[in-house]
Amino acid sequence: MKQLLFGVHNHQPIGNFKHVFEHVFNVSYKPFIDVLYDYPDFKFSLHTTGPLWLFFESEHPELIELIREMVARGQVELVISGFYEPVLASIPHRDRVGQINMAMKYIKDRFGITPQGLWLTERVWESEIVPALVESGVKYVMVDDFHFLSAGKRKEELYGYYLTESEGNTLAIFPIDETLRYLVPFREVSQSIDYIKNIPGDLAIIFDDGEKFGAWPGTYEWVYEKKWLQKFVEGIIKSDEIKTLTYTEAMQKFPPFGRIYLPTASYFEMGEWSLPAEGALEFIDFMNILKDKGLFDRYRRFVRGGIWRNFLVKYEESNNLHKKMLFISNLLKDKRSEKMKDSLYKAQCNDAYWHGVFGGLYLPHLRKEIYENLIGVDAKIKTPTYMIDDFNKDGKEEVSLRNKKLRVSVAPHKGGTIYEISHFGFRYNFQDTLARRFEHYHRGITVGDAPQEGVASIHEFKKYIDEKSAKEMVYDKYLRYSLIDHFLPIYVKPDELRYGRYNEMGDFVQGCFAFRRIENGIKMYRTGVLQGEHPLSVRLQKSVILLNDSIEILRRCRGEEPLDHIVALELNLKLESPKVSSNGNLYSIMESDFYMEDSKSIEIVDDVLKCSVLIECEESENIYIYPVLTISQSEGGFDLVYQGSCILFMKRVEKESFKDKVTITFKGGKSNA
Amino acid sequence: MKQLLFGVHNHQPIGNFKHVFEHVFNVSYKPFIDVLYDYPDFKFSLHTTGPLWLFFESEHPELIELIREMVARGQVELVISGFYEPVLASIPHRDRVGQINMAMKYIKDRFGITPQGLWLTERVWESEIVPALVESGVKYVMVDDFHFLSAGKRKEELYGYYLTESEGNTLAIFPIDETLRYLVPFREVSQSIDYIKNIPGDLAIIFDDGEKFGAWPGTYEWVYEKKWLQKFVEGIIKSDEIKTLTYTEAMQKFPPFGRIYLPTASYFEMGEWSLPAEGALEFIDFMNILKDKGLFDRYRRFVRGGIWRNFLVKYEESNNLHKKMLFISNLLKDKRSEKMKDSLYKAQCNDAYWHGVFGGLYLPHLRKEIYENLIGVDAKIKTPTYMIDDFNKDGKEEVSLRNKKLRVSVAPHKGGTIYEISHFGFRYNFQDTLARRFEHYHRGITVGDAPQEGVASIHEFKKYIDEKSAKEMVYDKYLRYSLIDHFLPIYVKPDELRYGRYNEMGDFVQGCFAFRRIENGIKMYRTGVLQGEHPLSVRLQKSVILLNDSIEILRRCRGEEPLDHIVALELNLKLESPKVSSNGNLYSIMESDFYMEDSKSIEIVDDVLKCSVLIECEESENIYIYPVLTISQSEGGFDLVYQGSCILFMKRVEKESFKDKVTITFKGGKSNA
Repeated sequence: MKQLLFGVHNHQPIGNFKHVFEHVFNVSYKPFIDVLYDYPDFKFSLHTTGPLWLFFESEHPELIELIREMVARGQVELVISGFYEPVLASIPHRDRVGQINMAMKYIKDRFGITPQGLWLTERVWESEIVPALVESGVKYVMVDDFHFLSAGKRKEELYGYYLTESEGNTLAIFPIDETLRYLVPFREVSQSIDYIKNIPGDLAIIFDDGEKFGAWPGTYEWVYEKKWLQKFVEGIIKSDEIKTLTYTEAMQKFPPFGRIYLPTASYFEMGEWSLPAEGALEFIDFMNILKDKGLFDRYRRFVRGGIWRNFLVKYEESNNLHKKMLFISNLLKDKRSEKMKDSLYKAQCNDAYWHGVFGGLYLPHLRKEIYENLIGVDAKIKTPTYMIDDFNKDGKEEVSLRNKKLRVSVAPHKGGTIYEISHFGFRYNFQDTLARRFEHYHRGITVGDAPQEGVASIHEFKKYIDEKSAKEMVYDKYLRYSLIDHFLPIYVKPDELRYGRYNEMGDFVQGCFAFRRIENGIKMYRTGVLQGEHPLSVRLQKSVILLNDSIEILRRCRGEEPLDHIVALELNLKLESPKVSSNGNLYSIMESDFYMEDSKSIEIVDDVLKCSVLIECEESENIYIYPVLTISQSEGGFDLVYQGSCILFMKRVEKESFKDKVTITFKGGKSNA
Repeated sequence: MKQLLFGVHNHQPIGNFKHVFEHVFNVSYKPFIDVLYDYPDFKFSLHTTGPLWLFFESEHPELIELIREMVARGQVELVISGFYEPVLASIPHRDRVGQINMAMKYIKDRFGITPQGLWLTERVWESEIVPALVESGVKYVMVDDFHFLSAGKRKEELYGYYLTESEGNTLAIFPIDETLRYLVPFREVSQSIDYIKNIPGDLAIIFDDGEKFGAWPGTYEWVYEKKWLQKFVEGIIKSDEIKTLTYTEAMQKFPPFGRIYLPTASYFEMGEWSLPAEGALEFIDFMNILKDKGLFDRYRRFVRGGIWRNFLVKYEESNNLHKKMLFISNLLKDKRSEKMKDSLYKAQCNDAYWHGVFGGLYLPHLRKEIYENLIGVDAKIKTPTYMIDDFNKDGKEEVSLRNKKLRVSVAPHKGGTIYEISHFGFRYNFQDTLARRFEHYHRGITVGDAPQEGVASIHEFKKYIDEKSAKEMVYDKYLRYSLIDHFLPIYVKPDELRYGRYNEMGDFVQGCFAFRRIENGIKMYRTGVLQGEHPLSVRLQKSVILLNDSIEILRRCRGEEPLDHIVALELNLKLESPKVSSNGNLYSIMESDFYMEDSKSIEIVDDVLKCSVLIECEESENIYIYPVLTISQSEGGFDLVYQGSCILFMKRVEKESFKDKVTITFKGGKSNA
């Protein structure tokens, strides 16, 4: 008799669009439960993340009722994770425990049972999470069978579970059967059932994304209209050779196979995604060579790429989210406010922190939700108006300024730039723009429409993007922060700035500034060199001062000889639906650029945020705005995404020195916190 | 200007022979310091483990004086590890902190400085150790550059250091330059110096085993007699392009390159050794294929084997050491005794827990020292006389019995065997025998003498062992515990037993016994089946009772029909220098077997332990003893090592049932604890 341990994991990220929740509910979460409800003998395990439970509660409480009944009759075992689906390895121990306990309590309160199992978010395993699991009463987790193979186990030893141990505390680990994961629900029902009947052991173990049942392309028709799920369930129930068991029942009936210790791990593909783009290409090349030579299947278990946490190195913007999250977590360490902790935990939801085959970090609305939750807490806790610390953990000091309305964080060692402009009233980080980067999947992209018949190369399907997107496939040399000082040739054209085809004459963009505190702000200064017929020494000084809803920037520049350059100050601000007004009309700046001659100020209005940002520059001659657009992969292909607006205040300077004053003022309807 | 960060790591395990300490002192530790003492301008970092400091203190305090002077004049930076060189990932957090603080204090007390850096024992990195490092004030560690390459860094990005972070606390990590590690001291001085001059960055980083300077084969002549070290130091000092720096100075003068997060790691070869033998062979095959195809150098960074902790899975005997250590650590959790903690920490010294290219676990004297320290603590702390727990963390219950003299631990689910016989008086675990196992390096061994000219195959030099050793290359089907119940054919011969060429007729050897507590002991029972013309059901019952210095074993067996088998009870006991007396003479049983007809008892005497073990078996007819010998690799080739004595009490049974009583009595000169 074979035992089928069947589990599904359902998740939507914090901050995802309501219509997405609703759509996936209709094509997957609901019909899945509806089918299984009719088969009380088909036992299975169900993991639903916090954001989904909250959505069901408010929009579809009837689904919760169904699940409650299925739990009560012993058909369904509920499995948890950190409530808001954080990658456990990415958050502090206390928050691991807090999130797991929150999920435990949620299930206990509503279903009257104590969960035993934990779905490992993104299946990211690090030994350091074990103490939190043990402390919270988690009895088992599941990981990919691949890791057991890597640890030297043979496939035939994986139809059961193992124990791992930390400081003597044990935790069961189930290896998820990859073969079964590829069969269910994509192949004929009979294939899955035959496979299960013939496993050389007792337990057939599968736990996989619930969205495969209806939400993935083509699966709704296959799983429900063509009744794959119903046939599968009936096939299992009818079989004399297969029984369904929950994971907890399996642990009661079968002893573990032995001990195991796993290395840092996730699913195999994570190894590719978490590498820097160049490394990922090398990794893909290596896999392709192994496949060509027929070595891949046999030796894949010895092949590994990067680890999840290196997304924080690969994307500094992700690190900014993460270290702000750690900062807020630290503020809450000794506080009891459930509400603030709830906000923190929401902000730990994994999706916005990384990027694989889904948009993730590239999706501004996901990042927005994280910042909104973090800024909400930040607004409520009194912290110094001037703090020096290595906030981003790069070994150098940053400075964070705050007043009642704003937190503005500055990295003197990175060009003296502003990397955070969090407004407590809007609970919005206007600085949250993402740089345009080479991604490994940009290699081999073909410009044009895909031919009707897909032409597959040996290793990958050819990828197509349209000409408009292709034009935007430009890679930034620096991050999209604000207060970037350019010294440009006098003949530079706006288009050259947008597409990165200009010569930077100065060395201030990423230069290291000295700094000191001033009233309500910071003063930074640096002596740099301008290229030209002969190198020209220039001293630049800039102050950032918070004044209520405004950021005031004072700049002074003095060369040892007269300059002859376009001096440009670059800001990058993200808004939700930014428009500028010109001649009484409003123009969206999310797709097109905008050039204003003889202008000293610009007002950007946003009717989503219900705010306006007025930027005045006393010495500006021309203003140029262009959208920062990225090309990222998602389940649907390539997305061209607005990440923010680059705003350049330009002036030709022909003297030794100049002074300037820039004021950024945030106005709007929302009241402050 | 290039900065050379030069570090050496010196270690001898707890329990190693004094003459080894002395020899390595004379050929390496001392001459190394003597040479460098003459060059105060050559700065370097020095790691000396606790066992070595203690040895220097008692035998060669003059060396400590020299080092003190070199520290005082700023030439030497002292680096620490856990004091007794534990693999930090293998011990509880509290002991990590304890061992590191002990090392910190040792250095502070004797040298008046606070160490900043930590040598990562066996370079085993797990994220879970970071909190202990941070908590103890460690500022930096070094790991192999390989791990940075695996994380996607390019080689040219590794001439500096990085920061990692855990819960916001940072720690610097230096990548050890592998190229330099292979040059120093093995190639001409000029090659190393040229390499350092030409690194594409500031810091040339090396930290490697100090024993390479004199103790490795051939190196004494090369490093000292031919003056490699002196020439190297003079070459560095003379060079205008190279300066030496300590690691701490490097951190003060150079900022980190950025952030990094590392996966579970050690040096590359550990990946091979920690895999089960079959997996290790596959891993070697894979590497050889990659080398043949010219892919290895380029893609090695994506190739990984097992992890250190899986030695605890690969070798159950290592797990027994480890879990006993955890048990003792747990007993000491809330105790303050420095002395007992010192014993615990000694018992955490890594060497005996694993096996790579040195003997390690295969060396009985290293295991002895671990057990001696653990048993010393166990003897002093009152614990229940009967404990049920999953001591070895395999998910099943074991039982541990103790009285004032003995701790005897039993695994009912593993054939009802005894897996620990710790005597508090002798501080010795008589059960500490190691099974004979296939090791991956047994593949391709040739029997006979090596030819004068070494003939190298493509991938490995041919390995030779003599015929005597070859005969012992036999692999056990079960672990070398005691109280193993055999049912054998009546014509079985002793030699067949020794070399595993017999048919086991019963299924008790690894069968699962039920059990219950009895006075001073445990009773286990199981119904099994004997093979034969038709299967025969047999019920076996055995009790283990502690009586002062003795273990009394009562056995009852009842078949549903008359048996006709040799019933054999197997004990495996390890001693240091065991001899048996026969006809008034003493015969060593470490190499030869010994057959005693018509014998009901045997006394083994050991003049190292100064003890005797008397074993009486009321129903025995013949007794057969043979040495359990293993073939393991070490730096010198293959070692044939005595691991214990297998003692078989045999009796032909022709009735339905039999009863037996076996008494094992430990006597000796040492007083009890």
